[in-house]
Amino acid sequence: MREINIGLLGCGTVGTGVAKILIENRELIRSRVGTPLVLKRVADIDLNKERGISFDEGVFTSDAQKVVDDPEIDIIIEMIGGNGISKDLILRAIKNGKQVVTANKALIAGQGNALFKAAADKGVDLAYEASVGGCIPIIKTLRESLVGNHIKSMTGILNGTCNYILSKITDDGSTFEEALSEAQARGYAEADPTLDVEGFDTAHKLAIIMSLAYGMEINLKDIYIEGISKISPMDIEFAGQFGYRIKLLVISKNKGDRVEARVHPTMIPFDNLLSNVNGTLNAITISGDAVGDILLYGHGAGMLPTASAVISDTVDIARNILTGTHGRIPLLSYQMENIKKIPVMPVDEISTHYYFRFSAADRPGVLSKVSGILGNHDISIKSVHQKGRKSNGSVPIVMLTHIAKEANVQKALTKIVCLDVMCDRPVLIRIEDEDGQDLI
Amino acid sequence: MREINIGLLGCGTVGTGVAKILIENRELIRSRVGTPLVLKRVADIDLNKERGISFDEGVFTSDAQKVVDDPEIDIIIEMIGGNGISKDLILRAIKNGKQVVTANKALIAGQGNALFKAAADKGVDLAYEASVGGCIPIIKTLRESLVGNHIKSMTGILNGTCNYILSKITDDGSTFEEALSEAQARGYAEADPTLDVEGFDTAHKLAIIMSLAYGMEINLKDIYIEGISKISPMDIEFAGQFGYRIKLLVISKNKGDRVEARVHPTMIPFDNLLSNVNGTLNAITISGDAVGDILLYGHGAGMLPTASAVISDTVDIARNILTGTHGRIPLLSYQMENIKKIPVMPVDEISTHYYFRFSAADRPGVLSKVSGILGNHDISIKSVHQKGRKSNGSVPIVMLTHIAKEANVQKALTKIVCLDVMCDRPVLIRIEDEDGQDLI
Repeated sequence: MREINIGLLGCGTVGTGVAKILIENRELIRSRVGTPLVLKRVADIDLNKERGISFDEGVFTSDAQKVVDDPEIDIIIEMIGGNGISKDLILRAIKNGKQVVTANKALIAGQGNALFKAAADKGVDLAYEASVGGCIPIIKTLRESLVGNHIKSMTGILNGTCNYILSKITDDGSTFEEALSEAQARGYAEADPTLDVEGFDTAHKLAIIMSLAYGMEINLKDIYIEGISKISPMDIEFAGQFGYRIKLLVISKNKGDRVEARVHPTMIPFDNLLSNVNGTLNAITISGDAVGDILLYGHGAGMLPTASAVISDTVDIARNILTGTHGRIPLLSYQMENIKKIPVMPVDEISTHYYFRFSAADRPGVLSKVSGILGNHDISIKSVHQKGRKSNGSVPIVMLTHIAKEANVQKALTKIVCLDVMCDRPVLIRIEDEDGQDLI
Repeated sequence: MREINIGLLGCGTVGTGVAKILIENRELIRSRVGTPLVLKRVADIDLNKERGISFDEGVFTSDAQKVVDDPEIDIIIEMIGGNGISKDLILRAIKNGKQVVTANKALIAGQGNALFKAAADKGVDLAYEASVGGCIPIIKTLRESLVGNHIKSMTGILNGTCNYILSKITDDGSTFEEALSEAQARGYAEADPTLDVEGFDTAHKLAIIMSLAYGMEINLKDIYIEGISKISPMDIEFAGQFGYRIKLLVISKNKGDRVEARVHPTMIPFDNLLSNVNGTLNAITISGDAVGDILLYGHGAGMLPTASAVISDTVDIARNILTGTHGRIPLLSYQMENIKKIPVMPVDEISTHYYFRFSAADRPGVLSKVSGILGNHDISIKSVHQKGRKSNGSVPIVMLTHIAKEANVQKALTKIVCLDVMCDRPVLIRIEDEDGQDLI
């Protein structure tokens, strides 16, 4: 059998991992695929960085375009990331008839519809398993293992940085700022952590898997996004007292003609497996009409775990090349002509359980005023806890609600915030609980 | 595109689930695959059973052989199970050049080597995702997603019946017999529960995934098997006091030139995700050199979850037919010529932590005698608890050990059992703990 030649664009952390696996596990991969996967060319602007790999002469280059144009290359692995030159290089590779593997979630979430169309028109594959959940086979599971299922909902932890920070606040009582510094010191968070902690990276991933699950065009802009930067140790402590942990979740529910799609800090009960997913780990629960709930768990980032998913895609494509096929599995799980524009439900229209924490003056009648406003907005209180006075004289009042409508909640909070007894903005955290929900 | 015609052999629980998904989710599957999957023929000896499905005229037959010989059928789905006629029908289907999907773990574990050879010789696929872990994509993950990884170990709960019984004893304090009756009443256990509760079904599954993970011939006979019928509520309670839950686990470790392969009740710490997998649910942790640990979780049995995995295999094969390929992925994950006979380590040679419970007469010097014998066999005690006297006058002495050799443990127990102060056979339960192990 012929060899499969690979061109790698970008040799940063994950790119280096891909090169390492291709070189160190070359014999293993050959024994499974039946032919060697040869790392023919590697392009990176940094020629001098120590990567712990000795490439053969002539493999390393600073000219990515030369790799994309090399007629001997079968598969291009794009590991540059971001929205810059990576898109042009991928499009050029597609134009040259090459198969492409990428882990670039920002690019797929933002411009996937156009990229997939270009690939389908040219009849090449564009694989992206590593763009969601690192090594966890989420995309393969959605496109292949659950192919007979209507997907009902997905709930997951898909950002290791946020999960590390929340775990750190929960376990050590750190503030958000302390936990973030620690994450940065360990290399789990970027110098500018906005993309992670404000939930944008998580939303990129949700946009991709929603499309695969429901057969809809990729739609990033309508996802409701709320990050974790306002989560305080106090709310995590109260959550614990009620039997919940706070996680930054992706939540998506199939409502037939519309879908729910949101990323926000969420309280989930201790006995939900997701609440035991800590540190930088990721996990997702997918609910299908035949399978019920399945959960997939593993490292959502890191050099070798992410590279493992890239290799999985690369081998899938190599097997297509060796058997003379392409387009075996539709790029977005559904046949192009069956992909619809399914509207995302405005967050105002969702219904869920809520946690509120009000900081109120310690005066008679406060509770009655607050609960009166909630009652007037059809929000039924499940439990109330008024805790000891804080140093500034205010009292935290914590409430958990039954299922309520988000629009009503927002209206009620707008009124509550105007009460003269309120000392601070109220805290709202949504709860995913078992009654009436699809969680495990 | 042409239609894909399917012949279903066996319309019991899972077979009915397969038919239901093919009929009820037909439009969904078509929108993903691009062509309809048509259930052309269904064979079952019971023509009158109410299945909640109305088959078109001429679909249902009692003659399985006629289905296998029907030239219009592309894919045969074998859902008869067991070691009887199913093997002959599969071999005949292969001989007729048909693709085959099965969920028959007993057949694959017992005679897979011959079946896979027959399929490879004829150039057809034989798919069996549903044979291990129901709807959980364990086989796809091992063969495809982890293709770049040396698999280091696997630890899993792969029998829903046993997991239900152990959960019931743990949560309700039932005896084994009570929990088994409850499982039978709910349809989770067979009238003759031996295959499940004595660990044989679990071993079938381990034999299959070991082969896929390490590239070895399927070897059922060398797996060490111990069932759960001797697990008492007392040991589950002691386990809880030490921070452990008891689960029937498959444990397999890659030791390079040999592999560990065992099925036995095992204590695992509360913070291991597997200890939170309860009821009839299944889960597996797979450890690879690139991914670290990943965990997959879901329904390991049941009509629709198992059928979902069968549909996944059927669609994979349909896609191969539509793109004119076969043999895209080697049946046992490695190319035939790379599959080795890797010896399974005798259980005597493993090393692990142990839990012992001795029932001894309440007399001075007992502890010294027992610990003396353990010490003489190089077994170092980590903690000892002597609990209140039992009604028959004996005292339970519970010990946890550091890592010790199984052969030494067996020798020591043989000596301890001969002590005149011993009132009953000692209980031994192996522990998988984090120090020195690969678990999460």
